[in-house]
Amino acid sequence: MTSESNLRVVLASRPSGYPEAEHFRIEEARIPQPREGEALIRVIWLSLDPYMRGRMREGPSYAAPVEIGGVMTGGVVGRVVESRTPELAVGDIVEGSLGWQRYAVSRPGALRKVDPDLAPISTAIGVLGMPGMTAYFGFLEVGEPEVGDTVVVSAASGAVGQVVGQIGKIMGCRVVGTAGSDAKVDFIVNELGFDAGINYKSEDVDAALAAACPDGIDVYFDNVGGFVTDAVMQQINVHARISVCGQISQYNLAQPELAPRSMGLLIQKQAKMEGFLVFQFATRHEWARQRMAGWIRSGDLRYREDVVEGLENAPTAFIGMMTGENFGKLLIRVSEG
Amino acid sequence: MTSESNLRVVLASRPSGYPEAEHFRIEEARIPQPREGEALIRVIWLSLDPYMRGRMREGPSYAAPVEIGGVMTGGVVGRVVESRTPELAVGDIVEGSLGWQRYAVSRPGALRKVDPDLAPISTAIGVLGMPGMTAYFGFLEVGEPEVGDTVVVSAASGAVGQVVGQIGKIMGCRVVGTAGSDAKVDFIVNELGFDAGINYKSEDVDAALAAACPDGIDVYFDNVGGFVTDAVMQQINVHARISVCGQISQYNLAQPELAPRSMGLLIQKQAKMEGFLVFQFATRHEWARQRMAGWIRSGDLRYREDVVEGLENAPTAFIGMMTGENFGKLLIRVSEG
Repeated sequence: MTSESNLRVVLASRPSGYPEAEHFRIEEARIPQPREGEALIRVIWLSLDPYMRGRMREGPSYAAPVEIGGVMTGGVVGRVVESRTPELAVGDIVEGSLGWQRYAVSRPGALRKVDPDLAPISTAIGVLGMPGMTAYFGFLEVGEPEVGDTVVVSAASGAVGQVVGQIGKIMGCRVVGTAGSDAKVDFIVNELGFDAGINYKSEDVDAALAAACPDGIDVYFDNVGGFVTDAVMQQINVHARISVCGQISQYNLAQPELAPRSMGLLIQKQAKMEGFLVFQFATRHEWARQRMAGWIRSGDLRYREDVVEGLENAPTAFIGMMTGENFGKLLIRVSEG
Repeated sequence: MTSESNLRVVLASRPSGYPEAEHFRIEEARIPQPREGEALIRVIWLSLDPYMRGRMREGPSYAAPVEIGGVMTGGVVGRVVESRTPELAVGDIVEGSLGWQRYAVSRPGALRKVDPDLAPISTAIGVLGMPGMTAYFGFLEVGEPEVGDTVVVSAASGAVGQVVGQIGKIMGCRVVGTAGSDAKVDFIVNELGFDAGINYKSEDVDAALAAACPDGIDVYFDNVGGFVTDAVMQQINVHARISVCGQISQYNLAQPELAPRSMGLLIQKQAKMEGFLVFQFATRHEWARQRMAGWIRSGDLRYREDVVEGLENAPTAFIGMMTGENFGKLLIRVSEG
């Protein structure tokens, strides 16, 4: 079949603050053999996402943590290279949560077949995959935007934020994004069509929000938390909706950050703040995927990928994402497919 | 008509922390005369409620502040003693926001006629008035309880909390209340039928909640905020709903209190936190009032009033409410009616 070994990245130890190289270990292992009913997949693309920081932590969450010595969790797109199930043929492109490794064995029920004619296959873990579904349902179902609303989205050039903002424009909203560099701000405004962008690292966020949102903020789609969110909250309108998707500013703090309480504001503004996980909308993912593929074809929905070559560079890329070094959906090209 | 003067309580100065006697001034004024289309009302009952602390504060909120020297805002029940409108007859019992004073002039459109046969007239500013409507809609519409849910309500013996808990029992929920004395806890459990009560001043709230809510918390109706709320948040279930009604623990702080951020928890639990004001449900208040009057008649809904005699005692009673000295719906008996 192949003379390659199964390169993989395992969790070496648990970080208490920001993850560093020492918390990961790159290993070579034997390529697993599929049993009856299983298939062997060679990974082409690995998605790196902020939620993975949560899996490096012990203790209760919505999903089990990665064990020490275990392969890091991650969504991938790959090709079936050996099959012992009639449901998968050699050559099929599939998407699934197969982890940070070059080869994995899986079963048809844990995989989704990817149609390579719908869009480039990398989108199956990007704009048409988990990040895209997160944006679609978290914005439309939790944020409940209406035509003419002012929408603010944080981490606006990221995998989720870029999609949220563009759906907001498709919906007829005024869309303002926050991001961590002038290049990212330029991208969301001039490439994606956001109405305004704010560099939260260099600008006075309160003043910039007030300038960009003269009619206040109706919907806030939050990927970051922290001081950006505190500033947004001060400018929400009556009946505002805060869709809480991520809190990346908090994931790497060894101690919880203290902040002013916001519940009084929620009363004053009769506002809703709601957290969600993409899985809760799973029965409708396929429907949304088709709709979003149509927007890609029509040119209404663009996406930017940040591709890093080679699985051995995944830890460094992931560490960089924790401080916003990526620019767009972060992908690892694991193999040529 | 009467030889009385119009006793009234005005705002003397704005407190920065807890209100004290010096922030109020008791005045005698002339009884106002109704013009064409108006009526003169003699106040019988004045409602004291935590929201009034917000009106003593300058700056933007959902309602304008009381001016320095202005009569304190407040809902009252009174009797029409002189009428220059065909819509109101002398002797009619009415409810309206007429302030902390013995007499007020108003118009029919700003008043609601009270049916004295429905329930004692004091209930028009209590269980069948603003606090009751707050409980009804804030619990049912924002908290979205389902049969079998575990509901926690803070300030559980107060005007709103006691109603929330009893509606929870009517709904088929497990209901746990927090309150500030053993007598209050005894009352909500043994008089109102709550499943459990927690004295947040004397008990370990984390441990007491865990014991009282073995299946976690599905709905939290929050009147208080602060450390009680922080403890509740740690024990919410997936898809929990937090109905944010009041934050009395925060109203008298000169500086905002810092606390751990809770948005990460909202994500993990796919939970909703929503603030509301009773006015947003105004079109359905009358409908809810009739339903609640039925529950009072059937004995399913009880209420406890804490009656203080005499308008001149309103400031002291209000100050006491800020630290939980009242026990039940706080009412001032302004006149015999």
